This record gives sequence, structure tokens and C-alpha cells, in this order.
Amino acid sequence: MKLSVIYDSKTGNTKQAAEWIAEGMNGVDGVTARAFGIGDVDEEFVKASSGAVIGCPTYAALMTADMRAWLLEKAGKLGFAGKLGGAFATEQYSHGGAEIVIQSILTNELVFGMLCYSGGASRGKPVIHLGPVGVNGNAEAHNGMEKYRSNFIIYGERFAEKASELFVK
Amino acid sequence: MKLSVIYDSKTGNTKQAAEWIAEGMNGVDGVTARAFGIGDVDEEFVKASSGAVIGCPTYAALMTADMRAWLLEKAGKLGFAGKLGGAFATEQYSHGGAEIVIQSILTNELVFGMLCYSGGASRGKPVIHLGPVGVNGNAEAHNGMEKYRSNFIIYGERFAEKASELFVK
Amino acid sequence: MKLSVIYDSKTGNTKQAAEWIAEGMNGVDGVTARAFGIGDVDEEFVKASSGAVIGCPTYAALMTADMRAWLLEKAGKLGFAGKLGGAFATEQYSHGGAEIVIQSILTNELVFGMLCYSGGASRGKPVIHLGPVGVNGNAEAHNGMEKYRSNFIIYGERFAEKASELFVK
Amino acid sequence: MKLSVIYDSKTGNTKQAAEWIAEGMNGVDGVTARAFGIGDVDEEFVKASSGAVIGCPTYAALMTADMRAWLLEKAGKLGFAGKLGGAFATEQYSHGGAEIVIQSILTNELVFGMLCYSGGASRGKPVIHLGPVGVNGNAEAHNGMEKYRSNFIIYGERFAEKASELFVK
Repeated sequence: MKLSVIYDSKTGNTKQAAEWIAEGMNGVDGVTARAFGIGDVDEEFVKASSGAVIGCPTYAALMTADMRAWLLEKAGKLGFAGKLGGAFATEQYSHGGAEIVIQSILTNELVFGMLCYSGGASRGKPVIHLGPVGVNGNAEAHNGMEKYRSNFIIYGERFAEKASELFVK
Repeated sequence: MKLSVIYDSKTGNTKQAAEWIAEGMNGVDGVTARAFGIGDVDEEFVKASSGAVIGCPTYAALMTADMRAWLLEKAGKLGFAGKLGGAFATEQYSHGGAEIVIQSILTNELVFGMLCYSGGASRGKPVIHLGPVGVNGNAEAHNGMEKYRSNFIIYGERFAEKASELFVK
Repeated sequence: MKLSVIYDSKTGNTKQAAEWIAEGMNGVDGVTARAFGIGDVDEEFVKASSGAVIGCPTYAALMTADMRAWLLEKAGKLGFAGKLGGAFATEQYSHGGAEIVIQSILTNELVFGMLCYSGGASRGKPVIHLGPVGVNGNAEAHNGMEKYRSNFIIYGERFAEKASELFVK
Repeated sequence: MKLSVIYDSKTGNTKQAAEWIAEGMNGVDGVTARAFGIGDVDEEFVKASSGAVIGCPTYAALMTADMRAWLLEKAGKLGFAGKLGGAFATEQYSHGGAEIVIQSILTNELVFGMLCYSGGASRGKPVIHLGPVGVNGNAEAHNGMEKYRSNFIIYGERFAEKASELFVK
């Protein structure tokens, strides 16, 4: 089963997060996951995927303009309907709005006809409510992407396990 | 396969919407759907359901206090994890905030570990982006619940079809 | 006192809404309001304005990509900090997500340092919770922009009255 | 000029945040700020206040049921229309949904007719996009309320300065 992680990244933090999610997915039996920047998507791989997790940095408490444009212009052609959908984000401050970004991406995924899933509180700790967030260390010295590494990996595992349960018969 | 529709209703509009959704669900082969007010939920039926659609009126552009309390206090005990989740709302004005209510209910459902689904643009017209909304006729004379009847029924059908596809082997 | 209405419009519905808001504003003593498409903004007029109302159509339950790009690339240079901020949207279905768009625009305005205001329930009926919405007649025959005309005008009046109260000494 | 901070707190973290905001407010000349739990509000003080900042913990990525009930049942009687409004939240994980809670409280404040303000990026660093968030140390060892103390104080200062600018003639 194939799974895709698709990201917009400006400084590398969100790319790193995407790769951790794919790493978590690839740890699940039978799963082949790959991460793609929005400018470099392997469309055939995405179309053949059973699920996609989409993420971007938080700009002014909302998604980036490039992600907004990509979702409207390109994503509609990738056959997302019926696939499992997830979302993640990065931000510079804990209050920066990353969960609003995740909520917006999931909203768009629902309009694509995706099945959205995070696992939430049902998978034990860490509870990952809507999707994982990385607070990079640019503005809050006590934060930094490494502190969120395990959340991204665990989220990828949970997402891949659910996709396997649903789509591998 | 059982499906539940759960609602908070103050004047009957949201109850009506819930019953239309259940009607749409019951039109799908093999589905038995029932609608319950939050004060009168058949917990065994809900636990045995493969999916649940939850809705309420819009108060001050957000969900009702009773629905907020019910989601936190009762819904956690109903085994929602892994079930298909949907949401709907009613409002008095087209600008009243019903979609924000739907987005919030779906957010809570994700935390329960549900798979959220609307069908969105993937099921043709009417596009039902996040969930159906009924604008009652209290404040906008050109509106009224009857005008939204078919949206609720179609949404129920689509939801039941997806639940059947996922969970009836 | 100057006030600006800034819009992204694809088919003319949102432009029409913007002009109605400006019409309502211009009915308030001492106010000169103008409406601008995002590709044709009179930057000096906007900078000299005491408030700005921003709106766009709803695409996939979120704001348009052009509005997202404009807010991030251009709006930051228009000196919005401290100005009164408002928002509006159009949609094709009552459930299309216009209030989510309005909430997102207001969110971005707060990051600009604006004072956000709708009047809400404090100005009597029609209650305009977050901002006015026009449901165009493309998908719902009982709707159509004309049915929302008075909401846009009243919203413009209320916004201009509040701006006058705050900023005209 | 009086300013109020109103909170729902379960374990003391949100109460602590509220007191820091009030401390920041009280550092501004001419301001008397007090913090109240929702069960112990001095209604005369709140009515006489020029602004109110409202906050609560994040439960299932949304506001608490008690805050939702309080906003609908009690807050409407406190004459919030025209006052400056702000919001804050606490959460157990950086991805817990605190910004969604803040966005919801601000949404309700707009319906009350308040002027919402955060300062956002216009006041320099720290950028406080919508309102301050405290990630308590329950689930993320590298976090803890003390790490967010200065954000709450600075937010209180900025809010009080804006209220003074607007309402002290």
C-alpha cells in the first residue's frame, strides 16, 4: 500500500516534519510512503496512494499562499476522493496558529471527498488531536523541531495502520 | 449496519434535519438508521453503529452549550473511535456560522478517533462541502428548512453508502 | 474619514457585495468609502483609510488562493495596524463555508494588528454575526445576491458608524 | 480605566495565565485590571470595564463546556458591546488546539459587538497572533507555564495600551 506526504516548506522545518511522518508510515508492514514538496509531486505515486497527509508552515495564523494555490489548482487532479486524509503544520510560536492551519487543510480534504483521520485520543499518549505540530526554534528557544520528532513518527505510524486496516483486504 | 444521527434541538428545526438525514440513510440497502436527541440517546444502538452524524443549532456562531457539554461528558463513552463521523447544523441567517459549528463538531470527532467524511465535491451536485446546513425561516423569509430537505436526505445517503463501502465486508 | 472595501471577485458577485458595503458606508456622515479589487487597489487611499473590510468568494470552504496571496504579499504594506477591520464572503451554497472564510480573513486582520468589528447582536436585527454573506443563485435557486443586498448595506453603515465613533474626534 | 480578565480554570494553569495578563495590564498607567473565574465574576467591575480578555483550557481541541455555557448564559448580560475584546488559552500539547479555542472565543466576542484586538505582528516580537497560549508541562516536559509567562504579561500590556488609546480621551 502506498501513502503520500505532501508539503510546502520554506526553510526546511516542514520538509523535515514530512520526512518523519513518512518514516513512521514506512515502519508499518506493507506500507511504502514517500514525501513530496508541492513543486515536485510524483503524481502517479500520489494517485496510486491509499492516503495522503498534507502540511505546511503557518503564515499569519493561516496556511501559506502556495499551499492554498496548490490545493485548489493541483490537488483536485490527484484523485483524493475516498483516500485517507491527514494534516500537519509547523509554526514559530506555540500560539502561532498551526492547529488552525491543520483544521483548514482537513476542511479542504473533506471537500475533496477524503476520509479524515488523526487518531485523536483513541490511540493513547501522545494524544494527537488533529495532526502533529512542530514549533521550530526560531522564536521560542525552548522549542525546536527535534522535540516534536517522535510525534510526527507516531502520527505516521497510526495513520498507516488505519489506512492498512481500511484498505488492505 | 446501524447508523446514528444525534442532535441537540431547541425549536424542532434541527430535529427535523436529523430525521431527514436518517431517512436518507435508511434508503441505502442494509442500513438501519435512527435519530436521537442528546437527552434521549439509545447508547447500545449508538455503540453498535458503524457511524454517527452529529448536529446542533448555531448559537452566537458556535455550537450550543448543551452540545459542547454532551460531546465532552457523554460522547466519550459511546465508542466513537474508528466509526465514520459526520456533522450538520442549522442557523437563522445564511451568515450565522453554521459551517463553523460543523467544523467544530468534526474537530471533536477527530479527537474521538473517528473517520470524518462529507463526500464534498466528489459526489456531484449538490456539493456538500463539510455537512448540510438548514437556514430556518425565522430571520430570512426566503429561507426555511423545507428548502434544505433534499440536501439532508442526499447527505444521509452518501454517508450511508460510504459507511457500507468501508465496513460491510 | 476614508474607508476601504477590498475584494477578490471572479464572476462579479463579490464585487457587487463590496459595492453595497461601500454604499452603506457612504451613507454615514463624513465618510468617503471606495471599493477596490485586489488587482486594482489605490494604495494611498487605503493607507489613508481608518478601516478596511476585506472579502472574497468561498472556494472549497476556504478563501481563494488569490486573496490568500494578496493578504500575505500586499496587505502587509498597507498600514492596516490600528485600523478597524471587517470581512465578508460569498458562496454558492448556504453550507459552502463562507463564515469560515470570514473567520479566516478576520484572523489575518488580527495578525495585522487591526481592531476587528462586526456589530454582531449588539446592533439589533439583522444580527450580522461575523460579517455579511451573499449566497449567489448559481446552485440554490431560492437564493441570489439581491436577497442579501440590505445586509451588506446595513453592515457597511454599522462599520462606518463604529469607525466614526472611534476615530473622528 | 478598568479592564477585566475572565477565565475558566480546572487545575490552576489558566488562572495563572489570567493573573499574568492582569499583571501586564496593571503596569500601564491609569489601568486597574482584575482577573475573575467564571464562577466568581464581579459583574459591576466587568460592566464598568473598557475591555475584557477571556480564556480557558483546551478540551478536545475546543473550548470547555463551562466556558461555552458561560459565554451564552452570563456574558450577554455584562454589556460587552463596544468594549475591547481579547482571548487566550492553555493546552497540554503544542498541537492541542489552543488557537482554535482563541479563535472561537474571539468569534463569540464579535457576536457580542466587541472590538477584537491582539496586536499581532504590529507590536514587534514576540508576535502574538491571536492571543497568548500557555502549553503546560503535563504532557510535554520541555514546556510548562513559566515559559509563557512573559507572553501573557506583554499581551496584557499591549491590550491595555490599545484600550487606553481608544477609550481614554
